[in-house]
Amino acid sequence: MALRHETMNGLLTDLYELTMAAGYFEAGKAAQRATFEFAIRRLPPNRNFVIVAGLAEVVDYLLNLSFRTEEIEYLRGLPQFQNASPEFFEYLRQFRFTGDLFAAPEGTPLFAGEPLLTIRAPIIEAQIPETYVLSAITFPTLIATKAMRCVEAAEGRDVVEFGTRRAHTPEAGVIGARAAYLGGCAGTSNALAGFRYGIPVMGTAAHSWVMSFAGEAKAFRVLQRVLGPHTIQLIDTYNTVEGARIAARLGPPLWGVRLDSGDLLSLSRQVRAVLDEAGLHDTKIMASGDLDEHRIRSLVRDGAFIDSFGVGTQLATSADAPAMSAIYKLVELNVSGIQRFTSKLSDDKVSVPGAKQVFRDAARDVVARSGECGKGEALLRPVILEGELVEPLPGLEQARCRAAESVRKLPAPLRSLEAAEPWPVIYSRELRELIEQTRRNLTTCQPLS
Amino acid sequence: MALRHETMNGLLTDLYELTMAAGYFEAGKAAQRATFEFAIRRLPPNRNFVIVAGLAEVVDYLLNLSFRTEEIEYLRGLPQFQNASPEFFEYLRQFRFTGDLFAAPEGTPLFAGEPLLTIRAPIIEAQIPETYVLSAITFPTLIATKAMRCVEAAEGRDVVEFGTRRAHTPEAGVIGARAAYLGGCAGTSNALAGFRYGIPVMGTAAHSWVMSFAGEAKAFRVLQRVLGPHTIQLIDTYNTVEGARIAARLGPPLWGVRLDSGDLLSLSRQVRAVLDEAGLHDTKIMASGDLDEHRIRSLVRDGAFIDSFGVGTQLATSADAPAMSAIYKLVELNVSGIQRFTSKLSDDKVSVPGAKQVFRDAARDVVARSGECGKGEALLRPVILEGELVEPLPGLEQARCRAAESVRKLPAPLRSLEAAEPWPVIYSRELRELIEQTRRNLTTCQPLS
Repeated sequence: MALRHETMNGLLTDLYELTMAAGYFEAGKAAQRATFEFAIRRLPPNRNFVIVAGLAEVVDYLLNLSFRTEEIEYLRGLPQFQNASPEFFEYLRQFRFTGDLFAAPEGTPLFAGEPLLTIRAPIIEAQIPETYVLSAITFPTLIATKAMRCVEAAEGRDVVEFGTRRAHTPEAGVIGARAAYLGGCAGTSNALAGFRYGIPVMGTAAHSWVMSFAGEAKAFRVLQRVLGPHTIQLIDTYNTVEGARIAARLGPPLWGVRLDSGDLLSLSRQVRAVLDEAGLHDTKIMASGDLDEHRIRSLVRDGAFIDSFGVGTQLATSADAPAMSAIYKLVELNVSGIQRFTSKLSDDKVSVPGAKQVFRDAARDVVARSGECGKGEALLRPVILEGELVEPLPGLEQARCRAAESVRKLPAPLRSLEAAEPWPVIYSRELRELIEQTRRNLTTCQPLS
Repeated sequence: MALRHETMNGLLTDLYELTMAAGYFEAGKAAQRATFEFAIRRLPPNRNFVIVAGLAEVVDYLLNLSFRTEEIEYLRGLPQFQNASPEFFEYLRQFRFTGDLFAAPEGTPLFAGEPLLTIRAPIIEAQIPETYVLSAITFPTLIATKAMRCVEAAEGRDVVEFGTRRAHTPEAGVIGARAAYLGGCAGTSNALAGFRYGIPVMGTAAHSWVMSFAGEAKAFRVLQRVLGPHTIQLIDTYNTVEGARIAARLGPPLWGVRLDSGDLLSLSRQVRAVLDEAGLHDTKIMASGDLDEHRIRSLVRDGAFIDSFGVGTQLATSADAPAMSAIYKLVELNVSGIQRFTSKLSDDKVSVPGAKQVFRDAARDVVARSGECGKGEALLRPVILEGELVEPLPGLEQARCRAAESVRKLPAPLRSLEAAEPWPVIYSRELRELIEQTRRNLTTCQPLS
């Protein structure tokens, strides 16, 4: 069961990271320092950027990465480890991450072809985290990005994350709620996310509440008694407009009503009229039910009387883009003091050699080699050095502000819901030279090696 | 951080479950016994059935559901709970699940409109689990179903789950690996899933392995030394056919080679020829790289020389159907000894009243009222009664067999990758009468209540 294996993280990776670890160890490569890079190969469809999230999970993982006795015993029993030496298992027993992590802060918008984080460490320590790091960054990054799209479409109205029930495990709902808040949502329905991250939590009643009473009037009255000024009545269990009339007759306290089915545009107008007629001008209308950024935009542009949108399924799974093409590749290796740059030449899957930095100014991003000077903000910052956290990570509120402010500075077309002319991302001259040189070396030397 | 909050599950739900709990409590409804039903509203696109998975997580959750002091303190501080009584918080402190769970066993194929699981308990105990149960069942059900599709397409060749890096959190990768195995995969790359569930684990080396050596020959030789007869060489880092030649020259031990990019059909033929020429007739070819059931089917039908498929992104996220339309609705309530049946009449979102059973025979499913007798297998079985597990759940291997055998018995068109004529699912006469009667009651009585 998920809930019982909390501190077991050494095995939470692909087996091949561990067979490679054994291989590096047996080949005497354990001391070679490697640089691995997490880079965004392609943006998800219709995205003009992604909002980086998930770094806190990666830091927690790296600082606590270890192998319990029972994990090591498990590996020792696998056929793939029959040739591994006792020294390798002893190495695992003592394992801890002693390397460096450089990363773009949470809330940074990034573009295709850009590195998002770099791990520099003895090769085994940098290899094992691949699987965890890819998953821990990609998922919240997708959710923060999707949230930002919904928030843009809502043009100032609140967007609330409602999707835990559709998330890929309940715990993913908690992580997703945090990412959605980072991306601009006003709050979440997930109570644990509220507790853990201090995110505003929202939600009052479901249809079962209404159905559990003999009629809506009774259900609504009791809810008001319990929730007072925080009452939001769910009015669509039987008939939305009739539900609105019943809620209106009861009068205040009534923060709002929620529509969850039917033609939201038309219903929002009818319900607004019912509320206004009863003098409930401050009572808000919330809408939910299969919403996404496109439906929100239509409703807003068509003048729906909706003050707040609850978005579930589409947000919690980033349903139109549930995965992102991201890679974690070896880009540089130090073998006995000699730097060697590495690149993959596979069809359509070429990787770019060398440790890098990204410089962003008002007009473009320059991907450069890590030692270069450049103009503008250097996006990849030291987070862990020699296994120690450099300074506490920026908090969630700070990341949320960074996301909002950075996106506000982007050219307007990039903030649209459709693919636009990409933000310029160019390689520095030094990086281009390194790419050329590495490829020349590989294509001429490889068959002879 | 995810890893540190393992036993905190009371708050792992939508806030409105807890505001409703407070409301039920204050309204004196805590003793009312309610029946909630998890039902599949619609099948995901192109699916003719889903394979149920995730029940073990639900059982673990219900048997351990509780509220820690700090969770209760958090709720007490929220604006939504300012009117809740001290007795309610004391109730939460003592909370445990004392009700019944009926469910279709893992590995059961189900169809649109069918109940998957029923919880019958005092209303608060049945309400709070909604969010967790929906997420804990839906995600693995989607993955098991997607796995079965890949396995069907592979026509007897192995399909291995490779997707943790794309899963929505690393832990979702572990849960997904289990579900994929249940759905027919031969194994997983996820080492923790292997440890936790006893699933066969697979994987040998990534491109970084190859790149970390001065050339492929050296990389391949060292891998053979480490992995012996389990060696699978990844041959596409620079040039696939050249990689195959290098692997072939080294000869055995060599379980197989892996292609991860390019035109897999054409490359598989060229690589097979290289291997056969070297007398390596038993060396297998594994393929990976953006595969899904459709690409597998094409490769198989076009005669690709591929013995084993590694499927990542598409499987681990059920990318073409990352969510499923499932509901958890109040269907029945016992108020002071009088049964009341409940139904939602919202546009397009009608729910069906009453506790149910599903009877399956060779020709169709009959959804009946829970007390009825029917022909064939009764799919919903008691799992928890009065808060106690009735008997240990069937194990993973048993669920995997159930899935394979049940699907084999379905008409062939239902096993295709496209939507086919649906399996007949009909309502019993008694259930139809109950639906009619409940709706009549609601539409005539509701406005007067």
